[in-house]
Amino acid sequence: MKLPEQVTIYEVGLRDGLQLESKVLTVDEKVEIFSLLQKANVSQIEFGSFVHPKLVPQMANTAAFHEHLRSYPEMNLVALVPNLKGLELAKQTGVKSVNYVFSASNTHNEQNVRQTTEQSLENFKHLSQFASDNEINLNVTVATSFGCPFEGPVPRQRIMNLIEQLLLHNIKRITLADTTGMANPKQVYQLTKEVVNEWNNVEFGCHFHNTRGMGLSNILAGLEAGITVFDASLGGIGGCPFAPGATGNVCTEDVVHMLEEMGVRTSINLDGLIEASHRLGELLEHDLPGQVAKAGKSSRLYPVPNKTTSSLC
Amino acid sequence: MKLPEQVTIYEVGLRDGLQLESKVLTVDEKVEIFSLLQKANVSQIEFGSFVHPKLVPQMANTAAFHEHLRSYPEMNLVALVPNLKGLELAKQTGVKSVNYVFSASNTHNEQNVRQTTEQSLENFKHLSQFASDNEINLNVTVATSFGCPFEGPVPRQRIMNLIEQLLLHNIKRITLADTTGMANPKQVYQLTKEVVNEWNNVEFGCHFHNTRGMGLSNILAGLEAGITVFDASLGGIGGCPFAPGATGNVCTEDVVHMLEEMGVRTSINLDGLIEASHRLGELLEHDLPGQVAKAGKSSRLYPVPNKTTSSLC
Repeated sequence: MKLPEQVTIYEVGLRDGLQLESKVLTVDEKVEIFSLLQKANVSQIEFGSFVHPKLVPQMANTAAFHEHLRSYPEMNLVALVPNLKGLELAKQTGVKSVNYVFSASNTHNEQNVRQTTEQSLENFKHLSQFASDNEINLNVTVATSFGCPFEGPVPRQRIMNLIEQLLLHNIKRITLADTTGMANPKQVYQLTKEVVNEWNNVEFGCHFHNTRGMGLSNILAGLEAGITVFDASLGGIGGCPFAPGATGNVCTEDVVHMLEEMGVRTSINLDGLIEASHRLGELLEHDLPGQVAKAGKSSRLYPVPNKTTSSLC
Repeated sequence: MKLPEQVTIYEVGLRDGLQLESKVLTVDEKVEIFSLLQKANVSQIEFGSFVHPKLVPQMANTAAFHEHLRSYPEMNLVALVPNLKGLELAKQTGVKSVNYVFSASNTHNEQNVRQTTEQSLENFKHLSQFASDNEINLNVTVATSFGCPFEGPVPRQRIMNLIEQLLLHNIKRITLADTTGMANPKQVYQLTKEVVNEWNNVEFGCHFHNTRGMGLSNILAGLEAGITVFDASLGGIGGCPFAPGATGNVCTEDVVHMLEEMGVRTSINLDGLIEASHRLGELLEHDLPGQVAKAGKSSRLYPVPNKTTSSLC
């Protein structure tokens, strides 16, 4: 089992995670979680999105939240943008990195951003030019890369073609997203292996949900294929409001725990991450799906009970 | 990614699963779940254990339950036994297959069955003789094979030595168990690969818990190493009352779903399994940890909403 020595975790809890929560966190609450993440050495954070504030009220304070983040120049702070208007708002706010998202599946893209995948690709040219003119780093996430909840399977060749067209422009990273948790490890291995082999000088990331319990096994499959960037959401919160059936991104502390247990470095302090997850649960006022924050790390040992618990008959 | 074409699922929900539940299922309720499993084509079932009825009341009706199971001669119905007395009770009940469990870690074994691992191995000789004399199939589960909650890591060489000693006797199958969910995929791959390479004519199984979310990724690692038998628990219920911190075996329907999605056959009807899981949740009167029974299969498609849910700014 060949695994990379080091991987990058891209924290999406404050964006993909929070956007499905019924409780809208205030700027102060977001800053508190952000500070805990920063203390735990999480250095790549998608902190919000420039989408319609009435349709996604959880993200309405993204610009105000960003005001508090300027004192961390060493971090990669990214905002999601669905179109040029979002990118313009990000620029006005002083954001230096954005993540443009569109779907490989037409039906999903039409639901999400009211246009076909082809139109989103066409619009991407303008975003790319704007980002370049304004020295903004541009990442792209290809949603429904592993399947669409409306259309079903998405052909591998379609993803390869989309990537080829994206790479005609200046991009920092391309993330293949399993937006509604349909991917299985074999599929992940096959697609990412092909992608990594074809473009070995491009940084590819993967974004998985744990909808059917396969989140960590999909990460394992991606690792084996050579992927070294993974999205994850603190506490395992999240989903996508526009993709029915989606529940729970892969949980950051569970991902980091698995990686560190396997000797794959993340540079993240797991104890600090667990503390941040506990605080997030308090703020959201419900149990979070993550397991490690409840069970503790595998290395946690227990005192031997004084009384035997034998079950002998 | 090389995976086997077909694997065997060994259902442990009625034993490992139920033994941590506060509600004790009646014989009729167990028979109802058993029938649903049987209809879903689950053919290997650990249905109970011969342990102390006062200490494990959930298993006190194991013999009575077995009375109802005689009409399924094509199935592999197994009872757990912790010692010779348990095996004698199993024989009196007419059970044809048993699973002898002891721990690789001394401290865990002392807590569980009041003897050292060495003593359990010594006693195993008598069980082996008794089983042979009475034409009872004998499987062995080595608990804490991937780590002990009291002692920490268990050296790989210790497991290899234990297997070597077990194989001096007549055994149908050896299962390596991650009793408290400490294993990580790399560790699973390394140990199981070594075991499979060393004894390629012996049937080895793996038993994983999802305590830290790594259950399915550990199964993936085992598959890649050549393991073709996996324990799983309907609905993901279970744990071990003698191992603090343990919660939830890997969930049968989630395991079967992942395998089938990857093209690995199980011969199990997933829809029937999901139905059994829903019924188990009703009987236990609480939410079960399994994901697929809630989210539906990856292949489940959704109608396109009439109204767009676009989030454009």
